[in-house]
Amino acid sequence: MTDTDEQELSFWGWGYSHKTPDEEERRELAEMVETYLGFPERPMLETPTIEDAEMPEPSVEPPFEFCTTSRIERAHHTYGKGYRDLVRGFHGDFSPAPDAVARPETEDELGELLRWASNENVAVVPFGGGTSVVGGVECEGDGYAGVVSLDVRGLDEVLEVDPVSRSARIQAGATGPRLQEQLKEHDLQLRHYPQSYEFSTLGGWLATHAGGHFATVYTHIDDFVESVRMVTPTGVVETRRLPSSGAGPDPNALLLGSEGAFGVFTEAWMRVQPRPESRAKATVAFDDFEAGVEASRRIAQARLYPANCRLLDRKEALLNQIGSNNLLVLGFESVDTGTDADRTVEDDLGRAVEIAEEEGGDVRERSVSGDDDNGDEERDDTTEGDWRQSFFDAPYMFNGLVSIGVLVDTFETAVTWDGFYDLHDAVQTQVTETMNDVCGDGFLSCRFTHVYEDGPAPYYTFLAPAEVGDELEQWRAVKSTASDVLEEHGATITHHHAVGRTHKPWYREETPEEFRDALRATKNVLDPAGVMNPGVLLEADGDTNLDSDTDDDGKP
Amino acid sequence: MTDTDEQELSFWGWGYSHKTPDEEERRELAEMVETYLGFPERPMLETPTIEDAEMPEPSVEPPFEFCTTSRIERAHHTYGKGYRDLVRGFHGDFSPAPDAVARPETEDELGELLRWASNENVAVVPFGGGTSVVGGVECEGDGYAGVVSLDVRGLDEVLEVDPVSRSARIQAGATGPRLQEQLKEHDLQLRHYPQSYEFSTLGGWLATHAGGHFATVYTHIDDFVESVRMVTPTGVVETRRLPSSGAGPDPNALLLGSEGAFGVFTEAWMRVQPRPESRAKATVAFDDFEAGVEASRRIAQARLYPANCRLLDRKEALLNQIGSNNLLVLGFESVDTGTDADRTVEDDLGRAVEIAEEEGGDVRERSVSGDDDNGDEERDDTTEGDWRQSFFDAPYMFNGLVSIGVLVDTFETAVTWDGFYDLHDAVQTQVTETMNDVCGDGFLSCRFTHVYEDGPAPYYTFLAPAEVGDELEQWRAVKSTASDVLEEHGATITHHHAVGRTHKPWYREETPEEFRDALRATKNVLDPAGVMNPGVLLEADGDTNLDSDTDDDGKP
Repeated sequence: MTDTDEQELSFWGWGYSHKTPDEEERRELAEMVETYLGFPERPMLETPTIEDAEMPEPSVEPPFEFCTTSRIERAHHTYGKGYRDLVRGFHGDFSPAPDAVARPETEDELGELLRWASNENVAVVPFGGGTSVVGGVECEGDGYAGVVSLDVRGLDEVLEVDPVSRSARIQAGATGPRLQEQLKEHDLQLRHYPQSYEFSTLGGWLATHAGGHFATVYTHIDDFVESVRMVTPTGVVETRRLPSSGAGPDPNALLLGSEGAFGVFTEAWMRVQPRPESRAKATVAFDDFEAGVEASRRIAQARLYPANCRLLDRKEALLNQIGSNNLLVLGFESVDTGTDADRTVEDDLGRAVEIAEEEGGDVRERSVSGDDDNGDEERDDTTEGDWRQSFFDAPYMFNGLVSIGVLVDTFETAVTWDGFYDLHDAVQTQVTETMNDVCGDGFLSCRFTHVYEDGPAPYYTFLAPAEVGDELEQWRAVKSTASDVLEEHGATITHHHAVGRTHKPWYREETPEEFRDALRATKNVLDPAGVMNPGVLLEADGDTNLDSDTDDDGKP
Repeated sequence: MTDTDEQELSFWGWGYSHKTPDEEERRELAEMVETYLGFPERPMLETPTIEDAEMPEPSVEPPFEFCTTSRIERAHHTYGKGYRDLVRGFHGDFSPAPDAVARPETEDELGELLRWASNENVAVVPFGGGTSVVGGVECEGDGYAGVVSLDVRGLDEVLEVDPVSRSARIQAGATGPRLQEQLKEHDLQLRHYPQSYEFSTLGGWLATHAGGHFATVYTHIDDFVESVRMVTPTGVVETRRLPSSGAGPDPNALLLGSEGAFGVFTEAWMRVQPRPESRAKATVAFDDFEAGVEASRRIAQARLYPANCRLLDRKEALLNQIGSNNLLVLGFESVDTGTDADRTVEDDLGRAVEIAEEEGGDVRERSVSGDDDNGDEERDDTTEGDWRQSFFDAPYMFNGLVSIGVLVDTFETAVTWDGFYDLHDAVQTQVTETMNDVCGDGFLSCRFTHVYEDGPAPYYTFLAPAEVGDELEQWRAVKSTASDVLEEHGATITHHHAVGRTHKPWYREETPEEFRDALRATKNVLDPAGVMNPGVLLEADGDTNLDSDTDDDGKP
């Protein structure tokens, strides 16, 4: 991430400014919202400029050359990219801006900052791509002398490659494209494509259990980890590079998903792989969503290990502009072995399709491709290709929707198959009801992002007409309803978006108290001054889930 | 495990007394040892009787009906089944016998015992099958009022089955056969076959990262876990039943592999599956071990997901009486989907065989079978079948070897592919050298039990002529050399045998100090009185790795 890139980024919304919908595109969007969703007469709100951004004067200035208190830098590091973040940024509210932004170029500088912060009681918020949708990079800093956003993107090198074991030592500040470009020189790839891929970093992925494009086996970044290296206020914690170990509780597992509360990832040895030898894809349409669910379950349980097994309900297909049916998008990839002995993806696809047809599915498209495409995986002409493009573009659409007064957010979970239908019915009923109550209308779609032998990871998107000025209250009502339904049905509060500050009250209900006590004890060991990202995961003094109008239980 | 079964078990060695080699079989064994290994004139030692067992008087007697201080029960619960254990048992040395054995029938009784022990400063050692080979169930109890062995086998029911999600709630005291027999009523299986399968329990597997027969994907018991339930001195810790979650560090991962140091597993929701629809197997011979290693690596990296991918070096094949070549035993299994769309194991096998042939392998046997066999998977006529029988019978052979003065033990590890050859050479050279030095001769074989994309899990067996009376000193020399070599080469001290007390000094070198501090902090939360299996994993006062002649660093 160069300075030039940084300047081209939107200070309030997703991604690059030039890719954010312009006036004309926003008008088209408003028409589509009216036609497809039935939300009439959306307002054309004035898009903000950096001059509109209101933020307090910095209360601390770290004594390091790699730190800055510039307004634009502080604005860029104030929020993640959730709906709440976009709305506040759009309205110029940057009140929780960090006092300073640190951009260390070396691990030593990074360690120096943490020691200084511990001594000065300054909160440190690790920052990668800043794409959190759960308040993971936003810190009020009550009880602290100040807050520093620690941007890790200065450490972005692939340091070492082991082609025999197919592993690479990668610095945590490397974004998706940055590590991809360096691995490409070795004909290797990480093959982990979260929706935030373009901006988010390896360190951010490790800190939040990021979910990638593989629907099975390698569902989270965790599944590619050999070892990690974390700088904490007390020193460096490094695990051993191993394919697997049976020696005590897994040390990686205590650090992965720790969301910056213990320290900052600086490196990891990651499992990498050559480009897929071949890929096979199919799109299967279902009249009934339930039939698609059954097909997904049976394919997952058949251990065919599809790379993609993404079920979209009708509304989700509509939203992604790839049809009006329930669609099951299937994909298989094989690894190049240098022989003719590669796994035959076409056969695997055939088996998955046979199961889907047995459940009443109708095959719409089917294709097999070799490795002769030029590596630009984001472009192809299939429904899966369209879907993929739509997937990566969706966050830009969110910018546009916010700017025309549409409430838009997602929530995602995982649940065992036996509990899915009850959960899904309750989500549909209660979330829709809440949207109707507080917004007068609402739209809710569902897809499966990942499937396990024992259950799916459903992902919901909701849209509703927002009342400008009341958007956050409306959002809180819907988000609370959704989260409560997940909790009531024994589903997890997050499959791969992390806990952050937004999900903390439900995280508290989901996890055993003794386990959270153990995490607190771990934090005391690694971060005795308690300066690391205070307020994520665990309760922190003075933290009330970001909002003054929070209930006693901390729910928004 | 009924009382009758218990009485038929050897009090000093592996398994059932009637399956331990008798006088004649021992003479045959001595001849084979001379012929194949070149260890001449092994002594025919007198096998012990329970009357020979020497143990101290119990120092505490728990005030519960489900506890006993009977000699035979204490003898059965003194040791695991490592070489050191067998030797000491064989010589009638039961000095570390627990003061009492508890056999609770309910979780409430179990909790009552833990609370009593915490109040009375009595150490509690959770006991499943008692098959630890790393000193996991043996506790000196220095600094404690006494030691109680807590036998969990009274809790052995499958409590609930969810056929839709393919999961079952199983009590932790169920042995392999016990849970298999109950799951069979639902046409389901766990399909986790460690060598200790006949005797070891689900709880023991969870506490030690037990390794099963799957060579890829489902290598450890951990890979089947949805949620666990653990009783600790401070209460019950239960994780939520989920296919996956991205909410904070994985709570299961902190408990799995905790070796009884935090509490006792009482239940778990486990992923189960139907019988395989079909299986395909092949045995491939290699003149060069290295060629077999390359074939294993390439098959693992091709993501063919073999159920079996077990490379045996010449000596390992000899030991298992299945040939005199380096052998790669391959196996694939498919899950029944109720359609014709099951994964074609024959094709997958074909691809793996093609890779093996490219590396110079010579296919010796190849077969495909449907699900028409009667479920007795331990019987078939292939090399793989012979190997499997030999695998489950090996521990009985160890009984016989101990009784004829042969030192016999195993050690296992995992390492990245790039480091394997150096490690393997060093193991061969240094372990053989130590055996020659201290025993005058020695035999060392190697197999891969599991293969990962980034490295194998090598498993070594060593045999040497023992000097009766000096066996343990000889063993310590060899075991220390082996463990030091693993450490020097960055391999793990254990892939699936656990840390226990034997591996603790090397575990200390392998893991970050801050991580062990976090484990200690966790133990303080869950077991504030420090009575749970003191001395495993973490340093404990008064624990010196079982031997008074221990070096300062705790190594045997």
